[in-house]
This record gives sequence, C-alpha cells and structure tokens, in this order.
Amino acid sequence: MKNLVAGVDIDRVHTSYALVDEFGKIYAKGSFSTQEPKNFREYVARLKDEIVALSDTLDTPHAIMAVGIGAPNSNYYTGEIENAVNLAWKGRLPLAQELSSIFDNKPVVVTNDANAAAIGEMIYGGAKGMKDFIVITLGTGLGSGIVVGGNLLYGHDGYAGEAGHMTVVKNGRECGCGRKGCLECYASSKGVRNTAIELLAQSDMPSKLRKIPQDALTSKDIALAAKSGDAVAKKCFEYTGTILGEALANLVAVTSPQTIFLCGGVANAKELILTPTRRAMEKNILPLWKGKVKLTFSALEYENAPILGAAALAIKEIEKRNVVVARRKIF
Amino acid sequence: MKNLVAGVDIDRVHTSYALVDEFGKIYAKGSFSTQEPKNFREYVARLKDEIVALSDTLDTPHAIMAVGIGAPNSNYYTGEIENAVNLAWKGRLPLAQELSSIFDNKPVVVTNDANAAAIGEMIYGGAKGMKDFIVITLGTGLGSGIVVGGNLLYGHDGYAGEAGHMTVVKNGRECGCGRKGCLECYASSKGVRNTAIELLAQSDMPSKLRKIPQDALTSKDIALAAKSGDAVAKKCFEYTGTILGEALANLVAVTSPQTIFLCGGVANAKELILTPTRRAMEKNILPLWKGKVKLTFSALEYENAPILGAAALAIKEIEKRNVVVARRKIF
Repeated sequence: MKNLVAGVDIDRVHTSYALVDEFGKIYAKGSFSTQEPKNFREYVARLKDEIVALSDTLDTPHAIMAVGIGAPNSNYYTGEIENAVNLAWKGRLPLAQELSSIFDNKPVVVTNDANAAAIGEMIYGGAKGMKDFIVITLGTGLGSGIVVGGNLLYGHDGYAGEAGHMTVVKNGRECGCGRKGCLECYASSKGVRNTAIELLAQSDMPSKLRKIPQDALTSKDIALAAKSGDAVAKKCFEYTGTILGEALANLVAVTSPQTIFLCGGVANAKELILTPTRRAMEKNILPLWKGKVKLTFSALEYENAPILGAAALAIKEIEKRNVVVARRKIF
Repeated sequence: MKNLVAGVDIDRVHTSYALVDEFGKIYAKGSFSTQEPKNFREYVARLKDEIVALSDTLDTPHAIMAVGIGAPNSNYYTGEIENAVNLAWKGRLPLAQELSSIFDNKPVVVTNDANAAAIGEMIYGGAKGMKDFIVITLGTGLGSGIVVGGNLLYGHDGYAGEAGHMTVVKNGRECGCGRKGCLECYASSKGVRNTAIELLAQSDMPSKLRKIPQDALTSKDIALAAKSGDAVAKKCFEYTGTILGEALANLVAVTSPQTIFLCGGVANAKELILTPTRRAMEKNILPLWKGKVKLTFSALEYENAPILGAAALAIKEIEKRNVVVARRKIF
C-alpha cells in the first residue's frame, strides 16, 4: 500500500490536481474548468469527485492521506479562500472544511501559491534540508513564500509574506491593492510589460517591441527580444532586476535567508533577470551578507511546480500532525 | 528551592546583571565596568564571580538554572560575540561556551539587545501569549527583534532582524554599516539629532535648539523642546515618525505581526514619536491590515528592560530544551 497525497492548484480558469508521493513522483494528474461548477458547493463536490476518479485509474494500491491546495487569497489558519478577486465566488469560502467533510474527513490544507511554492521547494526542490529561505514567484504579480526555522512565515493572521506589496517607489505606479509603488508593479510580468512601454515612450530607440500592439505585449515577448539583442528589451530587464535586487536586500536584512529562489513566468527569462537582480542585491545588502546569500532559480519543473507545491503542503501537514510536542514544563 | 535565571546586559561601558524568576521578579542585581577586566578571559571569570557573589547575598534558597546574555553583535547560534565595534575585545569571542565551562556547565545563551528585548516582552511584558510581534529598539541605532510563530526570527546564520538596515532613502545619510539611507540613520537617537540639525540649517525658524551646541544636542533635548511647543523640534519628530511608519508598513507586509512595540531612548518621547509613526504606518499599510496592527510601547520598565530581556532569553532556552520533539515519522 502506497501512501499518496493530492496536490491541487486552483486558478481563475483551471483547477489542476495530481496524486503525488513523498518524493515528488506524480502518479496521475488531471484538470477541470474552475468556472464550470455553478456555485462553490458544486465546485467542492466536483473537486472531490475528480480526485476520487483519478485515484480509481491507478493500478498501484494506495491511500490518499491528505489534500493540499494552492489557491489565491487562501488562508492556512482558517482554511478559507477570502474575497479572491480572481475567482467567481465571493466572500469567505471554507474550502478546507467543506472538502474534508465530504472526503472522509481527510486533512485538507490550503495556502496561497507562493507559500505552496516555498513548501514545494523545501520538500521536493532546491531547498531540501534548508530551514531559512525565500521563494519569490514572478507571475502576474509578485508573491513570496518565506520559510524561517523550517516553517512558513504565516504571521499572526495567515497573511504574512506579501513582499510584493513592500513600497519601493514613492508615489510610483498604481497597484491593484489601491496603493502606489508596490514592488509587484515593477517586478512581475505586468511590471516588465509596463516598464517596456515606459521605455519605448521615453526614447526613439529602435526596438522590435514597437511592432507589437501594447495590448498584446507580454514579458515573454520582451525576454525574446532581449535575447536577440534588442536594447530596449535588455534595458527593461536591467531596470526590473535592479528594483527587485534592492528590495531583496531589504528582505535579507529582515529575514537572513540562506537562499532566495526565483520562479514564475518572468524567471523563465533566466540570466536576463537573474544577473541584474543579483548585482543590485549584492550592491545593497549589508556587508555581513555580501557574497553569502545565494540567488538562484527554483529547482522544480515550471509546469508541475504549483501542484507539487500543493502536494508538499499536504506532506508537511502530515509531518506536523505527527510531531508530538511535549507539554511545556519549566519550573 | 526557588529556580532563578541570571540575566546579563553587556554594553561598552557597563555590564549589568540580575537574578530573576519566571515572573520577572528581580531578586538582586549588580553591575561592573565592562572595560575593567584586562582581557576577554578575565572578563568572563569576573562575570561568573559577580553572579556567584550576588547569588550568595540572597536569603531565599535558590538555584541558578541558566544564564541569558544580551550583548552587541552576539550570535544565538554560535554563542559568540563577533567583531563588536563597541567592545574592546576583537574577533570572535566564544562567550556562551567560556562562561558555561567555568560555571558548572550551566546553559548560557547570548543574543543581541533587540532580540533580548523581544523575548523579554514575550515572557514578562506586553507580548505575553503573542506568537507574532515585533519589538523595535530606538536607541543610538535601530534594532528589531522579530518573533514569528512564538520563536525569534534568527535567520539561517543568527543575524536576521536587521530592520534598522533596510534602505529607506536612496543615497540618503551615511550609515555606520558603510551604506547609505538605512532606516537607523533616521529613526534612532542619532537620526533624530541629525534631522534636527538639518531642519535648523534649512530655515531661520526660531528654536530653542539653536542655543544648544550641535555636539551636545540629544534626542532628549529635542523631545523636551517639542513638548514645550518648539516648532522645529515638533517637525523633527514628525519627520522621524513618518520614515519609521513607512518602513514599518513594509515590515508588516513581510511578517504580519499582531503588535509592534517601540522601546529605547527615543520611545521615551512617547506620543511625539508614536503619533506620526502610526499615521504613516496606517497610510502605507496594505488595506487588509489597516487598523489591525497595534503599535504601542514596550510594557517593560525602561531601566530594567535589558536585563529582563536577557533573563527571559534564559527562561525561553530552558523551555526549549524541555520540549521533546518526537522523531519525524511520515510514511
């Protein structure tokens, strides 16, 4: 009998899920449309049915020990998704509790995608054996999963790790959060795109990017242009990396990680983003950490990272529940 | 038989120590000149002798269970003081190990003063029962002790919590760390003083502070002037609090504390510093935390806070050693 966990990644459009073992081996995976079920209750029932159906396809005798879910605006402490702007259902959705109640009371844990990515890195990726590290997800926004002393930094309410909303430019770009100058307005796929548009407007320098309609321009286009030598595109990544590196230096001052892992779409630009980020981080870091904090890419395969992160969250939860802490006894 | 711990606070000039119980009751205290012993070995021997002599004065039958030490540049993980610029002895000084070896192998733990202040707040002060909070010490510099999930955030090398060295002003004031624009160049007694000097130079506004020679001007003078209505002095605290509050908003985004406690000399300015700091923090904080993160003063008596923090560190260490964690056993 093989013990497995289910890892689930929920985004606006798709729900992806997989059955995974403790080594990150994916036994089977599937997906369905997040938007298809008519309401939240139907969605939860569908998710359970999908996992059970997937489980039935496996030849290996196995048991599903727990379910880990990465979802936007979800809270590890409450098990809820709370007012996710990217999902159709509003309010507080008790995802962990509802799924567990219709799924043999299995442990179900939720967290946001950046936290799941960090746990994934720790259990399956480049952070094995590390107790203090940070994963930065450079997607549409910027997420951060911060691990300290071997545990995710959830903060008092479950919402810690919002490094994307550190203010880095006073009165800077308008952020979706309602404020201005947040890190994620610069270091994210949207940020890269907006930087390119600004740079194109600021000069007449020739650039391939001028041929692409602004609406269609993506950070991937900009990375491709930069790789082919486009000066504006290269400058765009220099600028992005500089702002990110300066912010990471501040983050290091607070948390002193051993390694910072970059992942997400913008990280696919590889050295284009890594080199200027590292340069700016090293330039701005406290002397005691110069040359000591590693900046690298996630070791998880890009495509499977979200479900592996969610699966790792489930593994970590089982681990946690198995740890018996003796009663405090001092004097 | 009463179980006590020894709390020791080491600064450049004085070494203060006390015997304390688990409720923060100080049974006896003493101090000696940090600079008197000829070398580090003699210093350690003197420290042990002083604690033993103090212990001998107590009528209450007791045992000293552990020693906690707050010292500049000291590292919890290694037990060493490392290249403390404020102390006469250079290099790496194995304080915890040396003291323990001549003191019946008692547990000896060291950390910096801001971390000790945070543990003090948790065990004896306003953070009792809190698992996620921050203590900011506004002294000559700015220190931060960050508690997450009930434990100090030490980072991978023991040096986390350097919030005073987050860069807050690009190409700003020169910092003792060799960089520019660090938070502690603005939010500290030295920072308040330098702000006042800048403000005095920038206008001809009348101010009592003009009567004090620059060399002699202290943040206490400025606080007294502000309390008596001096416009320059008031503006100085407004400016200090604004920079501090903006930085705290970023710190909240990363760590999501329940409460932030201010302590140290500048905190004695009370509402003069608290009001603008709170205003700037609230203005710059992510909407989800607006009105939810408490900003207040340390509940520890100013004079005894350092030795109580050190004593609390010892208490926390005993607690930690008593916690038996069952072996990891998952699959």
